[in-house]
Amino acid sequence: MSRILRVNMTNLTAQPEVVPEKYETLGGRGLTSTIVADEVPATCHPLGPNNKVVFAPGVVGGTSAPNCGRLSVGGKSPLTGGIKEANAGGIAGQKIARLGIKAIVVEGQAPDGKLHVLRVDKNGASLLRAGDLAGKGMYEVDTLIWQRYPNKPGVIGIGPAGEMRMVSAGVSVNDEENGPGRYAGRGGLGAVGAKGLKAIVVDDAGGPGVTVADAEGFRLGTKKLADAIAEHPITSSSLPNYGTAVLVNLINEAGGLPTRNFSSGRFEGAAKVSGEMINEVATKIRKGAGRVSHPCHADCIIKCSNVYPKPDGSYHVSAIEYESAYAFGPDCGIDDLDAVAELVRLSNDIGVDTIEAGATIAVAMEAGVVPFGDGPGAIRLLEEVGRGTPLGRIIGSGAVAAGRAFGVTRVPAVKGQAMPAYDPRAIKGIGVTYATSPMGADHTAGYTVAPEVLGVGGKVDPFDVSKAELSRNFQALTAFIDLTGYCLMAGFAVMYIASGLEGMVGSTSAVVGKNWTVEDAVNLGTQIVRTEREFNERAGFTKADDRLPEFMKYEPLPPHNTVFDVSDEELDAVHAG
Amino acid sequence: MSRILRVNMTNLTAQPEVVPEKYETLGGRGLTSTIVADEVPATCHPLGPNNKVVFAPGVVGGTSAPNCGRLSVGGKSPLTGGIKEANAGGIAGQKIARLGIKAIVVEGQAPDGKLHVLRVDKNGASLLRAGDLAGKGMYEVDTLIWQRYPNKPGVIGIGPAGEMRMVSAGVSVNDEENGPGRYAGRGGLGAVGAKGLKAIVVDDAGGPGVTVADAEGFRLGTKKLADAIAEHPITSSSLPNYGTAVLVNLINEAGGLPTRNFSSGRFEGAAKVSGEMINEVATKIRKGAGRVSHPCHADCIIKCSNVYPKPDGSYHVSAIEYESAYAFGPDCGIDDLDAVAELVRLSNDIGVDTIEAGATIAVAMEAGVVPFGDGPGAIRLLEEVGRGTPLGRIIGSGAVAAGRAFGVTRVPAVKGQAMPAYDPRAIKGIGVTYATSPMGADHTAGYTVAPEVLGVGGKVDPFDVSKAELSRNFQALTAFIDLTGYCLMAGFAVMYIASGLEGMVGSTSAVVGKNWTVEDAVNLGTQIVRTEREFNERAGFTKADDRLPEFMKYEPLPPHNTVFDVSDEELDAVHAG
Repeated sequence: MSRILRVNMTNLTAQPEVVPEKYETLGGRGLTSTIVADEVPATCHPLGPNNKVVFAPGVVGGTSAPNCGRLSVGGKSPLTGGIKEANAGGIAGQKIARLGIKAIVVEGQAPDGKLHVLRVDKNGASLLRAGDLAGKGMYEVDTLIWQRYPNKPGVIGIGPAGEMRMVSAGVSVNDEENGPGRYAGRGGLGAVGAKGLKAIVVDDAGGPGVTVADAEGFRLGTKKLADAIAEHPITSSSLPNYGTAVLVNLINEAGGLPTRNFSSGRFEGAAKVSGEMINEVATKIRKGAGRVSHPCHADCIIKCSNVYPKPDGSYHVSAIEYESAYAFGPDCGIDDLDAVAELVRLSNDIGVDTIEAGATIAVAMEAGVVPFGDGPGAIRLLEEVGRGTPLGRIIGSGAVAAGRAFGVTRVPAVKGQAMPAYDPRAIKGIGVTYATSPMGADHTAGYTVAPEVLGVGGKVDPFDVSKAELSRNFQALTAFIDLTGYCLMAGFAVMYIASGLEGMVGSTSAVVGKNWTVEDAVNLGTQIVRTEREFNERAGFTKADDRLPEFMKYEPLPPHNTVFDVSDEELDAVHAG
Repeated sequence: MSRILRVNMTNLTAQPEVVPEKYETLGGRGLTSTIVADEVPATCHPLGPNNKVVFAPGVVGGTSAPNCGRLSVGGKSPLTGGIKEANAGGIAGQKIARLGIKAIVVEGQAPDGKLHVLRVDKNGASLLRAGDLAGKGMYEVDTLIWQRYPNKPGVIGIGPAGEMRMVSAGVSVNDEENGPGRYAGRGGLGAVGAKGLKAIVVDDAGGPGVTVADAEGFRLGTKKLADAIAEHPITSSSLPNYGTAVLVNLINEAGGLPTRNFSSGRFEGAAKVSGEMINEVATKIRKGAGRVSHPCHADCIIKCSNVYPKPDGSYHVSAIEYESAYAFGPDCGIDDLDAVAELVRLSNDIGVDTIEAGATIAVAMEAGVVPFGDGPGAIRLLEEVGRGTPLGRIIGSGAVAAGRAFGVTRVPAVKGQAMPAYDPRAIKGIGVTYATSPMGADHTAGYTVAPEVLGVGGKVDPFDVSKAELSRNFQALTAFIDLTGYCLMAGFAVMYIASGLEGMVGSTSAVVGKNWTVEDAVNLGTQIVRTEREFNERAGFTKADDRLPEFMKYEPLPPHNTVFDVSDEELDAVHAG
């Protein structure tokens, strides 16, 4: 029988609670968003005592299903001021589920401001003082925790950025090799440090595991899904070989690769920071010192991660994802993959979202703080974030704050959150998702790039401005996937292969003893997005927040020289009714 | 026949236009807000090319009426994101009116980013390169302009903060002695520098003057008003003797003087930074080196300004107002009047709003950047603003941005604008005005402190939570006064003496050939506020923006130990219907 673990930082208590009936079929984002909407006052200060941070594995989390290790983190975002869910891979989500915990709800605020560690195992949960972990980067934190706790536990933690309450701080989850690079990065949820919680240590040894209500339905569903993943070339070949950074060259070709603070959609140095180059460096140039086809947790059958080596062959960072490569590479005008790797490593250590950090450095570059293309300069800026200098505080406050501080009007953000790696002037559907997702600018909230550029899930003209229905459908399906605990990378297969989607839906509903159709799944996703938007409305969001930055409406983007010309009416049609 | 002067910074043109009929009876805030609402897209970037900045004297501006020198500055605020009007005394407003100009509308953006000076005289208007004025502080700018232009012109200008597009930048207007200390300070309108305009030089020699439609009505009205000003003890005695800082001791006594970032309503060092002490230092301790009863322009009969001397008797700054004294004094825990004077002088020179700057330094003090009470430390912070260092950029970005950068949740601001010198937990009506004014936290938008603490315009319990009607009435009357060009200080007299109010209304309507009653005036004010709120709605504001910061609802304020307990329903009732 699963429980919700309620952690009160004001009283320093951690108690299991019965799962309310309405939460029983939920998991992941579906559960974090519902709990946040039910329990958090929408107008509270995100860093004050009345916000809550919720951690939840997906419905299939902890089972034997493939690629089901996503851990959702939710709360009111310090970055957007709205509801937020970000999810990560790594090993902690599975372990939480196998301990029979559907969600960990962290509330209140440590009265003395001191940092704590929450230890969760088969015997229960307890809060300990963080001691010497305070102030440390995530590489050292993960290492020390594995030294001090048995059974190679899952570690969820925040770096110095989160401790300093920076609104670009993410939440780290460790991977199989205990690296900290799996991040629920977006929306500043790492500012959970404001509650006084440095890390959660999850040891699932001897845990009860996850009860699957309909074992046969589950077996059938997971097989269909695994078959689709094995069949589709993106999940079976592109991602394992080149990682998500396979997109660098593809999106550059499409003219939508944000370059030098979104002033061009094509970067002359793209190939140098591409997935193909990561593969080349990791497996050939540096004589196999790195890895591709690297899983972020044991049950992954796609393995889109990589291990990037230093020139001397030693470990540098895992993983360089497309979004990180774009943000620190083209968007900063940097074509040096070693510099990008170091920027990713620093982000993982300090505990900031790579997308927000890169986009913010690019805004600072536009202001002339350091020149575009200056890798060492960008590294210095991130190091200042870690030290909490005034300049570091500006960078750590995200792209909008940096734009304000430096007087830059060209800030690529929606609802206060910086845009991911697709310029919406060249790929209009993703712009519709950026504008209208309750999450702020977020490609994972409705990845219309699949049909618009990649020819997956249909084939749609990226310049066509009628994208409300497309974005709506993707947003709903994505919200469902985020509920399951399945990795969004599996989504490439299920978008293309109908039986894969049936398998994803079927295996999920089998866990909770339901028999959902794909239509049920989309309806459930729609309901989750609606719950999130209602929270945002209570927090003060209006249609004016469902818009892209003004400069994208009048500044044409090379090489196609198009502006973002989707009408406000089209944007408002996404969630109408 | 008056004209509107339209200045296009993109094309570098300045052309007079016929005044549309609907604007003929408007002036001041009534005119700036109407033009902004009519011409500025509500969702534009405040520092982008589509915002406009409008300068307008009041309806009685340029006439022989007493205290009619207010100059309104309006636009979309870079600080609040909503519509903004701030007004200042000094000599420029009168001169603009006497040149037959009802408003100067500045639009577009200098394409080369270079700064310009707009020269306006009887022969027309022209744009010149700012040359060596760029980067200079306002003391030097005013001095150089009087050296270079004849007839001691009015000067409207921005300091380095505005040039750097800092959102706490104000707009300076020079006074009789060519000091820059009269500021349309609030809301970041000094970021007009984003348009490429450093200063406006206004020479009214040989100008046509202002036509008064009904001379006899005007004579009668101004006499009634002047009589009321002469009769009321605040306008005839308190203000001339002690300036607005007479409020330091009064509000301290009431327990509403914001101290150490709004953590107490009483400051043990209040008397040391009070209006009484300013008088003592200026007229006695430093042997008459300073002045009280100092007018900010020739037609003032109240003379609430002062000239504060240095210990050696030389000129230090004019004027130390109550709001500046609170912000740099009690709110920063500073009881050293010379330090406060230097902070005001620096603000005037750099070109930042003293309220926002002081409140922001107090937030930084709470974060431990410098200790509370550290006058030299606060001065160093402001100097960093002037130099545009990273720390200076944080401080120059205002209290909300500093709170975000430093992780401080106790930020006293509404709609992004820092609170003036009255803690709303001890004086609830002003809290209702802070919450619901379209301007953000602004005491001048509806000064319910008059009846709540000063016993002017009625006598109301400051702790009573039913203040919607009171605030509504004050907001409407204030919007009318801001239309007239009369100084709000005259409002003390007209709130108390009915014939004074009749005189204010009668003299204003006489200028434009109308015969407004007091009821007409209030209706006109109501309409202006409605226009402003409609703009804000289009910009994305909702009821959630009409709220005080969360911490004031759960953190009791000493010495009365009360929270802000006005209900959301009461707040929403202010502008209902």
